[in-house]
Amino acid sequence: MRALLCQDGLQLDPSYPEPAPKQEAVVRTRLAGICNTDLELLRGYMTFRGVLGHEFVGEVVAAPDSRWIGKRVAGDINAACRRCPTCLAGRHTHCPNRTTLGIFGRDGAFADYLALPIENLCEVPDDVPDEAAVFTEPLAAACEILEQVSIRPDDRVVVLGDGKLGLLVAAVLRLTGADLTMVGRHEAKLAVAEAWGIATNNAGNVTNASTTAKPLPARQADVVVECTGSPQGFAEACRLLRPRGQLVLKSTYHGDFQINMSALVVDEISLVGSRCGPFAPALRLLAAGLVDPRPLISATYALADGKAAFAHAAVPGALKVLLKP
Amino acid sequence: MRALLCQDGLQLDPSYPEPAPKQEAVVRTRLAGICNTDLELLRGYMTFRGVLGHEFVGEVVAAPDSRWIGKRVAGDINAACRRCPTCLAGRHTHCPNRTTLGIFGRDGAFADYLALPIENLCEVPDDVPDEAAVFTEPLAAACEILEQVSIRPDDRVVVLGDGKLGLLVAAVLRLTGADLTMVGRHEAKLAVAEAWGIATNNAGNVTNASTTAKPLPARQADVVVECTGSPQGFAEACRLLRPRGQLVLKSTYHGDFQINMSALVVDEISLVGSRCGPFAPALRLLAAGLVDPRPLISATYALADGKAAFAHAAVPGALKVLLKP
Repeated sequence: MRALLCQDGLQLDPSYPEPAPKQEAVVRTRLAGICNTDLELLRGYMTFRGVLGHEFVGEVVAAPDSRWIGKRVAGDINAACRRCPTCLAGRHTHCPNRTTLGIFGRDGAFADYLALPIENLCEVPDDVPDEAAVFTEPLAAACEILEQVSIRPDDRVVVLGDGKLGLLVAAVLRLTGADLTMVGRHEAKLAVAEAWGIATNNAGNVTNASTTAKPLPARQADVVVECTGSPQGFAEACRLLRPRGQLVLKSTYHGDFQINMSALVVDEISLVGSRCGPFAPALRLLAAGLVDPRPLISATYALADGKAAFAHAAVPGALKVLLKP
Repeated sequence: MRALLCQDGLQLDPSYPEPAPKQEAVVRTRLAGICNTDLELLRGYMTFRGVLGHEFVGEVVAAPDSRWIGKRVAGDINAACRRCPTCLAGRHTHCPNRTTLGIFGRDGAFADYLALPIENLCEVPDDVPDEAAVFTEPLAAACEILEQVSIRPDDRVVVLGDGKLGLLVAAVLRLTGADLTMVGRHEAKLAVAEAWGIATNNAGNVTNASTTAKPLPARQADVVVECTGSPQGFAEACRLLRPRGQLVLKSTYHGDFQINMSALVVDEISLVGSRCGPFAPALRLLAAGLVDPRPLISATYALADGKAAFAHAAVPGALKVLLKP
């Protein structure tokens, strides 16, 4: 089969072996999405080698339980052992024995076929088109915030960063009724949030100072979700939060950085790391039309044009670039 | 009156003016405790100048409401405006207009008399002796953890640091029924915890390697309370915590330090800054005899011997040093 490999850079292999595990489902990829994590894997993150891709919608073509065959599915990317104390405590996404689709120890979705355990599959409702279902994984990651943090309708919430994940986070948090503002630096991305009825604040950028809007007031936000992945974003989050506010960290960061831990103690800030989330609620939001992620699609490429697709995804300002095998 | 001042080092002033505010209560100090914060204020923390001391039990000698006169009281150290949005949201300890007894903008308790607003006073039940009541403030700070974090009886909890605050934290968390271990480096201090029935782990020290115990296992604690105030303590807390565990920061830290923020995100750790707490629960625990802090008393000095008392409090291994006017 064709597969896009992370292997001394990005390589298209036209005859990569098809997955054929007896204990898992084999899924034909219908559509897959390029995530910033894929770009970072190519730069050496997790020292991953293999087929990239963890955002997908596909069709089951083989499974140990034949009832799954023919179903259209999204899939939880963490293949856990389901037996260890961590799994049995309900935290399978943290299983120490896990492999992760297209990220760690397991080939991913940028190929004609992928394999996942049946327990990882979620059927996609008929009225959710592939172009929406392909966002299930990052939308689940956005839902994870509400698994961890109680956001009340009267809260002032700020999402920092207008990238793909920031926009999906804002799309989910908007549903809480909270007083939500999204802060970004890209007019086109902020326009997506505005079309969803979300208030935006353009923090400007160095090349176009004229777009700089008035900064949000200090120490007034109840919850800030940091989606920039930059130390500057973290510092801005600390500036915006009120005492006893909650700072959700939704991005990973390059290397360590310095923080003033005493300020967190004095202001009794809670800092919450947030990663993968639950797929079923994400699919319910898509099925109900409460979140429509399709405005995030920048382009769709054939799998064979994977290199061009990755080049597009790496352009500043690009949103979601999809791959269609 | 006599007062111990933070003013170019520690000074005993034999004729400092008595407080005489019309809108506040005047309290005769019966007993006061030296906190590590007092030692840090002398080193320049908060650039405080004035009478030190924020842990006390005393007797009201004057008050705008005469019903308070003669009562034995402890006192919340944060004198808030009780009018601003932060106060009205129930967060008076974070009032931006606050002064803090013996720490910021308000003379403290190491004197014959102190002043506080009536709203800050809590009557001490008759059966709580002064030697226990003087711990109300740090015990309230320990109770604050349970205001912020849900600790379940089945949780594995580690308290890092066997100083005064760490011991009081352990004394409170022991009451949850959780599987609690206190980690420290001082045999005498750990013995206090052991006398309370708390499991201890001696992490040893450079001068006596023979006391080094086996380190606790990695990634198994549900909750770690960091009371060492050192970057090493923070790193050890991160090592001990399981994925999705909660790290409570109970100490301030000197300067900034580097942390691996991505590890917090990947493991979905919650980090909770924790400062001042509620006085009423602390007094209830003392009155019920559920916490008896008196084994923490290292020595009691006359106020006039304040310099000797501070020297004693600064000796490594010392626990609570009290001052009696």
